[in-house]
Amino acid sequence: MERKEKIVIALCAAATLLAGILHYSGANPVLTFVIAAAALACLAMIVGDATEQLGSRLGPGATGILQSGLGNLPELFVAIFALRAGLAHVVQAALVGSILGNSLLVFGLALFFGGIKNGAQRFKSEPPRMIATLMLLAVSALIFPTLVKELHTPAEPHINKLDIVVAVILLITLAASTYFSIKGDPSVATQETDMGHAEWSMTLTLVVLGLAGIGAAFVSDWFVEALQPAMKTLGISEAFAGLVIVAVAGNAIENLIGIQLAWRNQADYAVSVILNSSLQIALGLFPILLLLSFVLGGSILTFVLSPLLVVALALAAVVSAIVVFDGESIWLEGIALIGLYCIIAASFWWG
Amino acid sequence: MERKEKIVIALCAAATLLAGILHYSGANPVLTFVIAAAALACLAMIVGDATEQLGSRLGPGATGILQSGLGNLPELFVAIFALRAGLAHVVQAALVGSILGNSLLVFGLALFFGGIKNGAQRFKSEPPRMIATLMLLAVSALIFPTLVKELHTPAEPHINKLDIVVAVILLITLAASTYFSIKGDPSVATQETDMGHAEWSMTLTLVVLGLAGIGAAFVSDWFVEALQPAMKTLGISEAFAGLVIVAVAGNAIENLIGIQLAWRNQADYAVSVILNSSLQIALGLFPILLLLSFVLGGSILTFVLSPLLVVALALAAVVSAIVVFDGESIWLEGIALIGLYCIIAASFWWG
Amino acid sequence: MERKEKIVIALCAAATLLAGILHYSGANPVLTFVIAAAALACLAMIVGDATEQLGSRLGPGATGILQSGLGNLPELFVAIFALRAGLAHVVQAALVGSILGNSLLVFGLALFFGGIKNGAQRFKSEPPRMIATLMLLAVSALIFPTLVKELHTPAEPHINKLDIVVAVILLITLAASTYFSIKGDPSVATQETDMGHAEWSMTLTLVVLGLAGIGAAFVSDWFVEALQPAMKTLGISEAFAGLVIVAVAGNAIENLIGIQLAWRNQADYAVSVILNSSLQIALGLFPILLLLSFVLGGSILTFVLSPLLVVALALAAVVSAIVVFDGESIWLEGIALIGLYCIIAASFWWG
Repeated sequence: MERKEKIVIALCAAATLLAGILHYSGANPVLTFVIAAAALACLAMIVGDATEQLGSRLGPGATGILQSGLGNLPELFVAIFALRAGLAHVVQAALVGSILGNSLLVFGLALFFGGIKNGAQRFKSEPPRMIATLMLLAVSALIFPTLVKELHTPAEPHINKLDIVVAVILLITLAASTYFSIKGDPSVATQETDMGHAEWSMTLTLVVLGLAGIGAAFVSDWFVEALQPAMKTLGISEAFAGLVIVAVAGNAIENLIGIQLAWRNQADYAVSVILNSSLQIALGLFPILLLLSFVLGGSILTFVLSPLLVVALALAAVVSAIVVFDGESIWLEGIALIGLYCIIAASFWWG
Repeated sequence: MERKEKIVIALCAAATLLAGILHYSGANPVLTFVIAAAALACLAMIVGDATEQLGSRLGPGATGILQSGLGNLPELFVAIFALRAGLAHVVQAALVGSILGNSLLVFGLALFFGGIKNGAQRFKSEPPRMIATLMLLAVSALIFPTLVKELHTPAEPHINKLDIVVAVILLITLAASTYFSIKGDPSVATQETDMGHAEWSMTLTLVVLGLAGIGAAFVSDWFVEALQPAMKTLGISEAFAGLVIVAVAGNAIENLIGIQLAWRNQADYAVSVILNSSLQIALGLFPILLLLSFVLGGSILTFVLSPLLVVALALAAVVSAIVVFDGESIWLEGIALIGLYCIIAASFWWG
Repeated sequence: MERKEKIVIALCAAATLLAGILHYSGANPVLTFVIAAAALACLAMIVGDATEQLGSRLGPGATGILQSGLGNLPELFVAIFALRAGLAHVVQAALVGSILGNSLLVFGLALFFGGIKNGAQRFKSEPPRMIATLMLLAVSALIFPTLVKELHTPAEPHINKLDIVVAVILLITLAASTYFSIKGDPSVATQETDMGHAEWSMTLTLVVLGLAGIGAAFVSDWFVEALQPAMKTLGISEAFAGLVIVAVAGNAIENLIGIQLAWRNQADYAVSVILNSSLQIALGLFPILLLLSFVLGGSILTFVLSPLLVVALALAAVVSAIVVFDGESIWLEGIALIGLYCIIAASFWWG
């Protein structure tokens, strides 16, 4: 284990401990919320590193499956605790907010900083286009339950069944997509992530993964409990909290990685990482949580969103696809994407 | 005439006869419906062959016009009988269903089987892009009457006149498109269909065309009469019947051809055939039937659709355009398209 | 100054004078409206020429800023007088109508005439794609106030504040875009306009610019005052008048230039000029007028449009982007675009 990794783990343990102390001492909820968010981001990074380590021992195929499965572990924990606390609408907003945050804000920041540093960046390889196309298809599927509900079509009373049908179809697409990225045509497969870490022993990897997982489960609980009082203290609407604050906090680290890659002029790779993050939520996290919510005994999650969110989702999918298909990105497109994100966020500011 | 063609004609005559016997003997409507559907598909294939034979004697220009005119002859008959039987909403659903079926289900199946067999397929030539672009424009035009109706704009009381304006503009575009594919820039013209049939004599061609046409007219009548009781027996809603069952049954043969072409790695040609089929309905069959419905004396056909169908149509046009513009298709995109089709069908399952 | 330019200025002065006489003599409002429209178009051309002359003395960077600032001067005057006359809805319709007119009608005419004369035209350079992408982003931003209003989201009572947020974000994007086209990567910068005019002296330029500006201010006033009685005489609805008549009259000259460029086989340049004209309205003229309307003391301009206009705007942005991304344009696409414009216009004909 490298020195840098040890420092990250130590900081992470400290943040987790501090979050626990604040939680049990009933401290100011805003402070608890901020520290818990920091601890979660940190734990997410460690889970990511450990997953990569595990993957490097099991071959590239297994890495793909592991990353799909464990990559969103902290988000999964947060969502499960929030569902059990009856906060289905916050979970829903956070899932959609993560997609919007990735596809508009983070993508925009990556284009902006990448363009400022490296001039016009060209997308040459197939993966960004494939991801953008799949994202458009996933969002198209996702919006039908809302349409059925809002347009009061005859299927409205069966909306739960329709939700399940959509979830199953999205998960089949996810399975096919995971199979494809492992076995698929190498010319279009996503590049391997090779950050050149020193290798950990198998025992160490499993211990780190286990501890980080347990830590994430606890911190998620504290994060969710602090959420509502913190937002009340700050005077922020629940919709805005889920859509913007939870979504941005929950994806902070992976977002930074995407922007960093663009800065280093790895435009294709940056776009793949950022948009793939949105795709994993649409095809995986959202449908899994929806199915889980039927057995968890808390509130039921649904694909029925507020119509404004559906429009925002559809726009994000179309607009990021068009920017990718443009073939050449400039910082100006980044500014326009960030601007669009700000307008969407502003539309939810007044709760 | 080849041996294979003789067998097809014999089978077709048998199916037509059987459908007639079932119809006049008042047999189980489901059985009558299935046999009549099979006979219709069979007759559609014969009309197609005969049209091609006629075209090969008259030159490529005439073939284009003939195929535009006669290619949808059986669908035209079915629709006319259904309109006279007061089933305008079923006709409407079947027209939209044919577009959705081609642009999502059949296109998806072609990408899936083509990709499984041949790996990633690249679209090189212009026609698929041109067809996708025109389809997007046609669908954009098609949705305005629904918008005017649903949004209660001041033009709402004049919706019939708006329907006629839209129909005339779509038919002008069809005429321009037919002229273009005959006289247009050869570099972007659709490839010639050359299936290598033995040539028929002129007399034989006209006799076959005439008999198949008359047969199609009769079978269409029986098909339409069996439709409602068959759907009632099976417990299927009328919307689903029109959108999925009539649409898929009515295009079965031409759909198989498109999928077969993709399987044989003729990706560009397959996409042109499949998406052009949607385009012919949007630019030709739908507006012609709408104008005809004013003189037929049955129920009036309108472009005012249920809003959910309008969204489905718009999504199908955008999504298939993006897949075509992607430039490279993989079986995974096929799965996603099929999944989207299934979700749309599921949304109409509960009538 | 060339002989041709002198004739234009003389004609222009005559039209302005005539419009004034008709206005103060209380002549037939239709006649006054037509003459004032002609004078405005003429004055717009002179302002454009003078701006170019001024720019050629100040370097390419300044030209960009000047053209952004002065290019829409006559439209700005018309809009200000109309706002002060309480005609905010006409101004709004004219702004949206200009975008639709450029992106569908003029773009369609350019593709049609360019294709008829020169066969299939290929778009090679980046600017058309960049403009189409930015247009899509601008329209996406523009539609949120309408959505918030129509969907009755919690932000509805704060719609004026949301309007201002959107206006500021659009103007920031305009500033970035102007900066980009001046300093940006030369490989993607828009081509310089070089029409090969003889050079004017600085004094002459400023005098012409000043007189044309004053003329435009007066004629705008007369144009706006004649608008309502003229439309009443002709029996045309206000929505249609703003959307089609004012929009087409207000952009007549620059539209002709775009079509002319396509005819001369400068496809890339023609598309840039035409779509950039739409972009300048969405990013500049509309938000500036919205902010100005708060201080002018007339009626308040808003981004809240009729939902049908929002759909039309979104379609225009998506459809023109897809046509540009197609990479190859044919006259048939031109016809389809013109057809779509006619259907939109027809939807507003019945007021």
